[in-house]
Amino acid sequence: MKVVKFGGSSLASGEQIQKVYNIVVSDSKRKMVVVSAPGKRYSDDCKVTDLLIACAEGYLEDGEAPDLFEAVIERYSSIARELNLSANIVEKIHDDLLTLLQADKCNPEQFLDVIKASGEDNHAKLIAAYFRHQGVEAHYVNPKEAGLFVSNEPGNAQVLPDSYQRLYSLRERSGILIFPGFFGYNEQGEVVTFSRSGSDISGAILANGIKAELYENFTDVNAVYSVNPTIVQNPKEIRELTYREMRELSYAGFSVFHEEALIPAFRAGIPVNVKNTNNPSALGTRIVNERDNTNGPVIGIASDQGFCSIYVSKYLMNREVGFGRKLLHILERNGLSYEHTPSGIDDISIILRQNQMDHLLEKEIIDQIKRELHADEVKVEHNLALIMVVGKGMRHNIGTMAKASAALERARVNIEMINQGSSEVSMMFGVKEEDEKRAVQAIYEEFFVGVVV
Amino acid sequence: MKVVKFGGSSLASGEQIQKVYNIVVSDSKRKMVVVSAPGKRYSDDCKVTDLLIACAEGYLEDGEAPDLFEAVIERYSSIARELNLSANIVEKIHDDLLTLLQADKCNPEQFLDVIKASGEDNHAKLIAAYFRHQGVEAHYVNPKEAGLFVSNEPGNAQVLPDSYQRLYSLRERSGILIFPGFFGYNEQGEVVTFSRSGSDISGAILANGIKAELYENFTDVNAVYSVNPTIVQNPKEIRELTYREMRELSYAGFSVFHEEALIPAFRAGIPVNVKNTNNPSALGTRIVNERDNTNGPVIGIASDQGFCSIYVSKYLMNREVGFGRKLLHILERNGLSYEHTPSGIDDISIILRQNQMDHLLEKEIIDQIKRELHADEVKVEHNLALIMVVGKGMRHNIGTMAKASAALERARVNIEMINQGSSEVSMMFGVKEEDEKRAVQAIYEEFFVGVVV
Repeated sequence: MKVVKFGGSSLASGEQIQKVYNIVVSDSKRKMVVVSAPGKRYSDDCKVTDLLIACAEGYLEDGEAPDLFEAVIERYSSIARELNLSANIVEKIHDDLLTLLQADKCNPEQFLDVIKASGEDNHAKLIAAYFRHQGVEAHYVNPKEAGLFVSNEPGNAQVLPDSYQRLYSLRERSGILIFPGFFGYNEQGEVVTFSRSGSDISGAILANGIKAELYENFTDVNAVYSVNPTIVQNPKEIRELTYREMRELSYAGFSVFHEEALIPAFRAGIPVNVKNTNNPSALGTRIVNERDNTNGPVIGIASDQGFCSIYVSKYLMNREVGFGRKLLHILERNGLSYEHTPSGIDDISIILRQNQMDHLLEKEIIDQIKRELHADEVKVEHNLALIMVVGKGMRHNIGTMAKASAALERARVNIEMINQGSSEVSMMFGVKEEDEKRAVQAIYEEFFVGVVV
Repeated sequence: MKVVKFGGSSLASGEQIQKVYNIVVSDSKRKMVVVSAPGKRYSDDCKVTDLLIACAEGYLEDGEAPDLFEAVIERYSSIARELNLSANIVEKIHDDLLTLLQADKCNPEQFLDVIKASGEDNHAKLIAAYFRHQGVEAHYVNPKEAGLFVSNEPGNAQVLPDSYQRLYSLRERSGILIFPGFFGYNEQGEVVTFSRSGSDISGAILANGIKAELYENFTDVNAVYSVNPTIVQNPKEIRELTYREMRELSYAGFSVFHEEALIPAFRAGIPVNVKNTNNPSALGTRIVNERDNTNGPVIGIASDQGFCSIYVSKYLMNREVGFGRKLLHILERNGLSYEHTPSGIDDISIILRQNQMDHLLEKEIIDQIKRELHADEVKVEHNLALIMVVGKGMRHNIGTMAKASAALERARVNIEMINQGSSEVSMMFGVKEEDEKRAVQAIYEEFFVGVVV
């Protein structure tokens, strides 16, 4: 049995939903379908979820938001028209949403969650109706009735462990089950939504619950790419990567989706297959717990900007027990979280995201470090980019660093910082932001040109 | 005016002292001479200081140590014979040492310090006598009378700041001044010795005190070498290096002398010239505050063994504010000092000297980290060597890392860890101990063969 999840763009129009239908019925194991709310049909289109949020806010402020309400309904009815569905399905959605919007608003956060969730919930009903219209047995499944219970954290719900067991019984049901993503119910029976990529989370929870053999995650790309396509044109597709590798790639701004969404599936050892709704015959990318270490040491390259480094030097620092601990404590006290701490003998640098520090706080931190640790010198270097070169077992591959650094030399990129020695699957380079693209392109050239990934 | 310091091997025999005499009188600026106790004449010879320690311990335990006492005296008298000095200088030494050994022993530590210091003190008197015997005006200078006062920490005395001013007046004295190294006097007027390389410290303090133009440190090597001669045969000599570079080299078991001994000279901006008593015409090595960045990026390579790494991994570690601080606190609480902390996204490694941890403590630390930080995995890797590649401005030299790592690849050495990004003058590689020599040789080949340093 497989869990199949479709993103908003895969369900944005009748035409897209027909593709989804064909994908689902083409494999009898695709019994559990998790759906998002209608997404964008074209680049400057509006997602239904965004319309719903604006609509809910309108009701909270003015008690109404007629245009937005109509805009939402129009999205559903245009889809229904394309699919030749009877008008009454849209009427049901209309009445349902209106009821929700007119409900009690004493808890605005809870109200907002309910309205947001209706996007997926109503779309699931519509899609189930279309499947039946096509002559297939299909049922909308309500998460509460299925037993998906979550913590009461609106916008950041965490699944409650005993949900899995209850969801397992969905295996017994007949027909194709259409399950709305993005939300569950708290113990009071109220809707609570997950964080971003909420439908990915729902799919992963279901995959775990029904002990699926595979979790298919349909998006609008053919695969996870080995490097950011905006930096390298037509980059190689990754056929298979481990969850650990994906996590290291995601860390530095590299994401098809938010990798934490997949945790429930990986906890149950269920592989994930990222596929393209618009090109379902493409193999896509399999994300697994273990893979063969073929195709060279490097599987992907990720990079991100907006880092800075706080350099602290003090003579005989390395004799001073507790210096590092005290330094980190100063950061902690000021609510700063850091990424890495390369160190020399009498100096240490702290690499952190610079958006955490405005000019004032920066000055304050420098003062505190000088005052409390009697540092000889404290200076901040801004606008650094971190480049993550990721590949299983790379660390034990003699020569990987030689290749990477030679590539950077050819690109005339100065390495500001290297962090290697802990992660088994990645090494990290710090460079100036203006060098980021050239650096990534050079490393890609080195490891991927003429290599099958 | 120059301060000239001679080590024990430069003063081990009459023949050596004649060399010293010729060196001093060959330059009229060499007015202040700091001397050590007689050192080894041949590899399995005994240093007078070691004889004195054994002798003092004998007196503490048995109230006498005739053979050791005689052995000390015999060293002086053999030197006196070689130099055709009258016997009464040796009698003075004999009587002086006997008086010291028979003195009150209620404070054994203080007693030991006095006996140790007598090695330099008596040798200074002997050498001054020889200089006079040669017809040169020379005077023994007693540190107390000259005003060299120190903190009362036997074996680890720290100079008291106001000493410098008093020492300045030595400039006014006529003739060559022979100053015993290794000790000063506490405020009660008692002898207190410096730490190891004590005579180097005395020389540096005097250089600062009299505002010397140069501190000449005579040893038995022609220069500071660019790499450990036991690893690379006939390595290149370093003509000039900065104090900062020497410090980074010294860190990893690379030392002509203990670099901290030179601090007083560097505080006063006085350059140090390391020269060879047995080959005084050799240029030696100049240690300065600033140097031109010529001769390529790398000036020296140092390495040391006996490190281990504690690897800690925990899922979502990089979200956990304070994790690093708590981890370092556990080490601190257990009295462990660490060297570096390379980190991944969900993991961090702590590199430390493994002689700090026996098997039991290691197990205990692992338990504490698991228990208190709920780490997913904690493991210790033993027998690592750290290799320090040092050179001013290297960090901003594009391609240095490429060269170094390419060299390691050619030597089939796997890089366990790289630490670069904080020190301006070094980068560090962690390798397995069994790879250390091959790694150092390869890096030396890469940076030094065909290069003038």
